[in-house]
Amino acid sequence: MKKTLLTAFLLAPFLAMAQSGNTQDLTQYVNPMIGTAKMGHTYPGATVPFGMVQLSPDTDTIPYEVNGQYNKDVYKYCAGYQYDDPTIVGFSHTHFSGTGHSDLGDFLLMPTTGKLQLNPGTEDKPESGYRSAFSHQNEKAEPGYYRVQLDDHNITAELTATNRVGMHQYTFPEKEEAHVILDLMHGIYNYDGKNVWTFVRVENDTLVTGYKQTNGWARTRTVYFAMSFSKPIKSYGNKDFSEPQVYKGFWRKFDQEHNFPEFAGTKLRAYFNFDVEAGEQLQVKFALSPVSTEGALANMQAEAPGWDFEGVRRQSQALWNKELNKIQVKTLAKEDLVNFYTAMYHTFLGPTTYMDVDGKYRGLDQNIHQAEGFTNYTTFSLWDTYRALHPFFNIVQPKRNADMVKSMLAHYDQSVHRMLPVWSHHANENWCMIGYHSVPVIADAIIKDNADFDVERALEACVQTARTRYYDGLDYYMDMGYVPEDKNGSSVSKTLEYAYDDWCIAQMAKKLGRQELYEEFIQRSQNYKNVYDARTGYMRPKLSDGTWKKEFDPLDTHGQGFIEGNSWNYSLYVPHDPATMIGMMGGKHRFAQHLDSLFTMELPDKYFANTEDISRDGIIGNYVHGNEPSHHVAYLYNWTDEPWKTQERTRMILKAMYKPTVDGLGGNDDCGQMSAWYIFSALGFYPVAPGSEQYAIGSPAVKEARIQLENGKTFIIHTKNQRDKNVYVQRMELNGKPLNRSYLTHSELAKGGELTFYMGAKPNKKQVSMP
Amino acid sequence: MKKTLLTAFLLAPFLAMAQSGNTQDLTQYVNPMIGTAKMGHTYPGATVPFGMVQLSPDTDTIPYEVNGQYNKDVYKYCAGYQYDDPTIVGFSHTHFSGTGHSDLGDFLLMPTTGKLQLNPGTEDKPESGYRSAFSHQNEKAEPGYYRVQLDDHNITAELTATNRVGMHQYTFPEKEEAHVILDLMHGIYNYDGKNVWTFVRVENDTLVTGYKQTNGWARTRTVYFAMSFSKPIKSYGNKDFSEPQVYKGFWRKFDQEHNFPEFAGTKLRAYFNFDVEAGEQLQVKFALSPVSTEGALANMQAEAPGWDFEGVRRQSQALWNKELNKIQVKTLAKEDLVNFYTAMYHTFLGPTTYMDVDGKYRGLDQNIHQAEGFTNYTTFSLWDTYRALHPFFNIVQPKRNADMVKSMLAHYDQSVHRMLPVWSHHANENWCMIGYHSVPVIADAIIKDNADFDVERALEACVQTARTRYYDGLDYYMDMGYVPEDKNGSSVSKTLEYAYDDWCIAQMAKKLGRQELYEEFIQRSQNYKNVYDARTGYMRPKLSDGTWKKEFDPLDTHGQGFIEGNSWNYSLYVPHDPATMIGMMGGKHRFAQHLDSLFTMELPDKYFANTEDISRDGIIGNYVHGNEPSHHVAYLYNWTDEPWKTQERTRMILKAMYKPTVDGLGGNDDCGQMSAWYIFSALGFYPVAPGSEQYAIGSPAVKEARIQLENGKTFIIHTKNQRDKNVYVQRMELNGKPLNRSYLTHSELAKGGELTFYMGAKPNKKQVSMP
Repeated sequence: MKKTLLTAFLLAPFLAMAQSGNTQDLTQYVNPMIGTAKMGHTYPGATVPFGMVQLSPDTDTIPYEVNGQYNKDVYKYCAGYQYDDPTIVGFSHTHFSGTGHSDLGDFLLMPTTGKLQLNPGTEDKPESGYRSAFSHQNEKAEPGYYRVQLDDHNITAELTATNRVGMHQYTFPEKEEAHVILDLMHGIYNYDGKNVWTFVRVENDTLVTGYKQTNGWARTRTVYFAMSFSKPIKSYGNKDFSEPQVYKGFWRKFDQEHNFPEFAGTKLRAYFNFDVEAGEQLQVKFALSPVSTEGALANMQAEAPGWDFEGVRRQSQALWNKELNKIQVKTLAKEDLVNFYTAMYHTFLGPTTYMDVDGKYRGLDQNIHQAEGFTNYTTFSLWDTYRALHPFFNIVQPKRNADMVKSMLAHYDQSVHRMLPVWSHHANENWCMIGYHSVPVIADAIIKDNADFDVERALEACVQTARTRYYDGLDYYMDMGYVPEDKNGSSVSKTLEYAYDDWCIAQMAKKLGRQELYEEFIQRSQNYKNVYDARTGYMRPKLSDGTWKKEFDPLDTHGQGFIEGNSWNYSLYVPHDPATMIGMMGGKHRFAQHLDSLFTMELPDKYFANTEDISRDGIIGNYVHGNEPSHHVAYLYNWTDEPWKTQERTRMILKAMYKPTVDGLGGNDDCGQMSAWYIFSALGFYPVAPGSEQYAIGSPAVKEARIQLENGKTFIIHTKNQRDKNVYVQRMELNGKPLNRSYLTHSELAKGGELTFYMGAKPNKKQVSMP
Repeated sequence: MKKTLLTAFLLAPFLAMAQSGNTQDLTQYVNPMIGTAKMGHTYPGATVPFGMVQLSPDTDTIPYEVNGQYNKDVYKYCAGYQYDDPTIVGFSHTHFSGTGHSDLGDFLLMPTTGKLQLNPGTEDKPESGYRSAFSHQNEKAEPGYYRVQLDDHNITAELTATNRVGMHQYTFPEKEEAHVILDLMHGIYNYDGKNVWTFVRVENDTLVTGYKQTNGWARTRTVYFAMSFSKPIKSYGNKDFSEPQVYKGFWRKFDQEHNFPEFAGTKLRAYFNFDVEAGEQLQVKFALSPVSTEGALANMQAEAPGWDFEGVRRQSQALWNKELNKIQVKTLAKEDLVNFYTAMYHTFLGPTTYMDVDGKYRGLDQNIHQAEGFTNYTTFSLWDTYRALHPFFNIVQPKRNADMVKSMLAHYDQSVHRMLPVWSHHANENWCMIGYHSVPVIADAIIKDNADFDVERALEACVQTARTRYYDGLDYYMDMGYVPEDKNGSSVSKTLEYAYDDWCIAQMAKKLGRQELYEEFIQRSQNYKNVYDARTGYMRPKLSDGTWKKEFDPLDTHGQGFIEGNSWNYSLYVPHDPATMIGMMGGKHRFAQHLDSLFTMELPDKYFANTEDISRDGIIGNYVHGNEPSHHVAYLYNWTDEPWKTQERTRMILKAMYKPTVDGLGGNDDCGQMSAWYIFSALGFYPVAPGSEQYAIGSPAVKEARIQLENGKTFIIHTKNQRDKNVYVQRMELNGKPLNRSYLTHSELAKGGELTFYMGAKPNKKQVSMP
C-alpha cells in the first residue's frame, strides 16, 4: 500500500510533463514504406491521422478485368503502390490502407515536361506515356510527407496533406513548358464502366473544380474536388477517350477541347500547361469533399488557405506526433521502435474523416446530412477491425471511437435496410465479408464505458441489424440455429460470427437492464455449438436437412463452409466462451495439444495456393496470422493450463510477422487490424473478446510503455528483465500489488497506474489460467 | 374626351367583376391532343401551368441510335407520344412541349395485370411486353387530367398533377394480382449509355425513392423521385438488364432481386405487386426534385399530402382556369376558342419550375442553390421563345417573366462561361441553336418596365455573354463584323442574330444611361449589313477572305450558311431595323414584291426534304411558319406602303397553320413560341422586335378580348364587323381616340383601356405604315 502511494507520488511530475507537452518526435520511427511490397497493401504517401485525403503515388494502372476475365494482378494494387515497380504513374488522392479488395485512387495528378502525353504509357516503356521511371534512392516517405524524383521528367515531386487537402510541390530544375495531367480515368480496381461520370470546370486561371462518380466496391460513390494552382494556367485542354457515338456528335458543336472551361464524360483526361523557370516550384492544392465542389473549396480555404507547403508539412507531422505520443515506449532495439510506431501509424490511418469542415456529408441515401456534434467517419472494415483496432481506440482514441459509433448509427439511420455497417465506405454499404461486426464495436465501447452516444438507440440498432432476415443467411440462422451450407456458402464462418456478435448484444442488453433481449441473444450466442462435429472434433458445415456436409477437409480454405480461414483455424472461433469451447473440444490438455499442432504442423503446399490475402510468410505451421479469424488464437492457451505458451507464441508471432522492411507485413494490414494486434501484443495483453472487459495477458515486447489516456491518466507498463529470450512472464504487479491472473481489465487500465511484468527465460508453469 | 371618360366609367364594374373572380371554365376549350400528330411534338398528359411534372403517356421506345447509326424515327417522339401509335408503353413524368430535339421521359410507370413482364414489348405485338394497346375512343385529355383504357391489361389509368407531383389512379375491374412496372431504362431520345446511373430504395411498404442520372441533351442531369402507393406493396423486385461483367459479380452476393430494398445500376427495371379487388383503385403519387430524394418527399408532402385524386385534379384545373382567364375572348366560331385556349395552354407549359418547395435547386455547377425571393425556372428554349413567348409573358405573366429573368441570371452566376443561357434545361446548358437570346428576353422586360430584377447586373450579364470570344464564332464576329462561313457554319444566321441581340443590349444600355456600351453595341448591331450581298439581293455567306461563298442557293436550307431557314426567309431577319433593311433591299415597293413572292411562289419539291422540324403544311409558298426565323415576316408589310397585306397574310396564316385537330400544328410548337404567335396575331398585333416598345398591328381574329393585367388593369380589344372575310383593318381607336399608326406600344397596353378595330372586306390602302 505504502509503495503504491509512493509510486503515485513519484509518477505525478512525469505525468504532468507528458500532459504538458513532453512530445517526442516519434515520426522518425515511422516508416510508411513498410508493407508496400508483397501483401501488406499499405501506401507510402501523405496523410494525417484519420484524414480524408490519402495522397500517394500509384505505380501502375492494372484493371480489374482484361477481356472480360478477372485479372488477378489487380490485387497487388489495392493501395495503388507496389514497391517493386519501376515507374510512377502519378499521385492520386484517396487510398485504402491494407485492404484485400479495393477502390478509390481518385484524381491522379502527374507533372510532366517535354511532349504532352495524355496516356499513362506502360511500365516497360515509361517514355510512351506520362508516367515516369523512379528509383527508391530518390524517394522519401514520412508521416505526412512523401518525395520522389521523377526521372523521365526531371521533376522533384513532394506531397503533403491536411485532413481534406492534398498539397503537391513540383520543382523543375530547367526552364521549360510543364504540364500537369489530371487523369480522371485512373482508379484503383478500375474496369471499363467503373467511371460512371466525371465533370470538370475550369473556374478561373488557377482554380479547377469537379467530381467523379464511380461504380466499384462502393456502388454509388461520388467525390468532389477543388484544385488550385500556385500560378496561373497558361493554357489547358481535355480529351475524351470514350468510343465515338452518334449522340455525342450533338455536343461539342464548337471547339470544346482547347481552353474550354467545362467538360464531362466517362473517359476524360485533362492537362494544364505552365511556363516554368529553372528551379521554379509549382504548388497544387487538391481538396476533396463528399458533398459538393463548393464544399471542397470551403475545405481548401479552411485548411490550406495559403501556399506554405513546408508549413502544411510541419503541421501534418505535428498531428502525427500528437497521436503517436499517446504511447511512449522503450524497446530493446531501434527496429522495435520502428515496428511499434509504424504499427501505430497504420492504426491511425482509418476510419477516415467523411464530412466537410462545416459538418455536411453524403449519407447512404445519397442525400446530404449534417453531423451534429460528432465527426463523421467512413471506411469501416469491420470484419477486420472489431477485433483489435476498435478495442485499441477504446484505450487511446475513446473520443474518436465514440464518434465512429455515432457514424455507424448515422449509417444505420440512413440505411434502407435498417442495418449497421458491414463494410462501408464513402456513403455505401459494400457488404464485404460476413457477420454484423458493428455490434462488437458498439458493445466494446459500452462495456468499457466509452459510450458517449445514445446507448439505447445503439442497442436498438444492433438488435434490428441482427434481425434482418434477408441478410446473408440470417433467416436460416434465426430459424434453425445455424446457416445451412446448401443454402448459403461460408456457412460455418457465418454461424460462428453471428453467435459471437449475438453474445455482444446480450452483454449490452445485460448492462442496460434489457433482460428479455439478453435472453434472446445469449441464447443465439450458443449457436456455435450447432456446427461443432464432435466426431471429427471440428466445426463443420451442416446441411439444411441437419446432416453434415460429406466432403470435408479441415485444412482447405475454399468451398468448405469457411472464408479466409480453414476449419482448423476457424474451429477455434468462439471468442466469447473459450472455456465451453475447450470443454467441447476435449478439455484443456487436448485443446492445448490441438493448438500446438496448429502452430507446428507442416501444411502441405497445395493448401497455400488457396489461402487468401497473405504471403507464404503469413503462415506459421497452419496458423494463419495474415488473415484475421485466428488473431485471438495464440491467446487461447490462457484458458488451458499452459498460459506460458501464449507468451511464447505471441513473441514469436511479433518477430515473424512484423519486420521493419518494405515486405515486413505477413499479410494485408487490413485497415490497421494487423497493426493493432502488434501493438496490443507488444504491450503484453490482447482483447480476445471485444465486448468483454478482459484483456488476456501475453508477453510484452517493449521495455516500457507509457499510455496517455484521454481522461488525463497514464497507464505505464514496465517490463523487468526484458530480453529477447525472456519471453515468459514470471509474475505481474498492478500498481505494486501482485496480479495473480491471466487477464487485465479495461477499468484497471482506464484508472491509470502501473503494470509491471517480471520476465524470464523459462516458463512459470504455475501461472493462473483464465477462469 | 367625353367618350373616353364614359367608357372608363362603363368599364369599371366589369373590371371589378373580372378581378373578383368572374372566372369562366376555359379549360373546356383546351384540347391537349392538338399537335400530338405529325410535327407538333406536344404531349397530351397532365401538368399544371409552368409545372415541374409533365405526366404523360409514351407510345413507343424509339432509341436515338440503332447499330451506331442515327435513327430518324426518334424525332417523332420528342414529346413521347405519337397520335397514330396503337400502344402505350407507360406514363413518364417529364416531357418537353413542342421541341425539335429532346430528352426527359423520366420514370416510366406502367400498371399491368396477368403475367409479370419486364420488357416493354413491341408495337406490333404488345402482348410480348408490358405495354398495352389502346384506342382514342377510350382516351381523354384535359388540362391537368388524362385518362386512357389500357386494353391489354383491362385497367383504366388516370393521371393528374400538382406542380411537382404526378398522381396516377389505376382502376382494376377484376380481382387479380396487379403489377406496377417502374422502368428506369425508359427515356426520350434514349440510347445505350444515356442512363448514367439509377438508384432506388424501397423505404417501406408504400414508399420508394431514388434518382436517375442521364447524359443526353442535358449532359449531366439528375432527377430525384419519391413514389408513394395508396396501399402496401405485397412483393417487389428488380432486374438488371446490363451486360454480365466480372466486377458486378462482387455485388449481389445474396439475393438482391426479390424484396431487396436497394438497387442501383444503369439498366434497371423494377416491379411492385399488389392484390386488387374488383373495382379497386390503386393510386400512386410520384414527386420529383432536382435536389434530392429528401426534397422529392418534401415536395410530395407539401403538394399532395393525401389520397384525393379528384381533389388534385380539380385543383389542377382551377390553376389552369386562373391562367387561361387572363384573356377572355369572344370569337366567331367555337373552333377559334379551341385554337386560342389551346394556344394559351401551350404557352403556359414552360419554362418549367425547377426548384423544390423550399426553394432549393441544382445549379449549373451541380451544386445546390437556394432561390431567394424568386421561383427558379428551367427549360429555356430561347432561340424560339424570345420572339413572342416572353413578350406575351410581359403582358400576362410579368411576375413569372421577371422570375424567369432571375433564373437566367442565376444561370449566368453559376455558368463557368459567365454566359446567360442559350438553351438550357435541368441545370445544363445544351448549346442548342445559335445566338444569345437571353438578351432580347431581358431587354424586352427592361424596355417594357417589367424589370423586377437587378437591371445593372442583368446588363452586365448580357454584355459579358456577348463578349465570350470562344462561343460559336463570336471571336470572328467581334473582330471582323461577321462570322465567316469557312470558319464557322450557319454563319449568316449567326451574324444576323448576334446583330439583333446586340441591338437589344444597346437599347438596355441607352435606357440605363450607359452611353459607352450603347455605342459599342449599336455599332455591332449594324453587322447584318456585312452579310448582305447587294448583287443577289440576299443575305449570303461570306468567307474569311472577305469574298462571298461561291455556291449559293437562296432556296436551300442546308449547308448554305443558315439554320432552320433558307436565305429567302433569313434575309428578312433584321427585326431591329426593318426600314434600313428595306432600303438596302431596294425600297418599300420592291420589298413588298419580295414578300409577295415569298408567300406565293411554288417551292420545288426538292427543297422540302431539307426543311427541318415542320410538316409539308408548315410552309406557305416559301414562307416557313413551322420554323421561327420568319415569324416576324408577315408583319414587315407594315414597313412598306401595303400594311393591309400584313392583315391579309396573318389571318391566312392563322387559318392555315393552326387547326383544332391532332395534326393541327404546322410545325413544332417549340415550347409555346408557335402558340404565342397565334395569340398575338389573333389579338391583332405582334412584337416584331422584342426589346422595343412597339407591337406591329395585324388583323385580330377574335371578336373581343379582355386581357387581365397583373397591375389590376384590363386591356380590351373590340373588333367591329368581325367576319372571316373582313380581314382588313379600316381604322382603329385607342380608348375612343383614333389610332392612326401601324403599331401599339406596350405602355399603352399596360395602362389598360380599349383598342377597337373596325374591320372590312377590302383593304384600307391609305393606312399609315411604320415610320
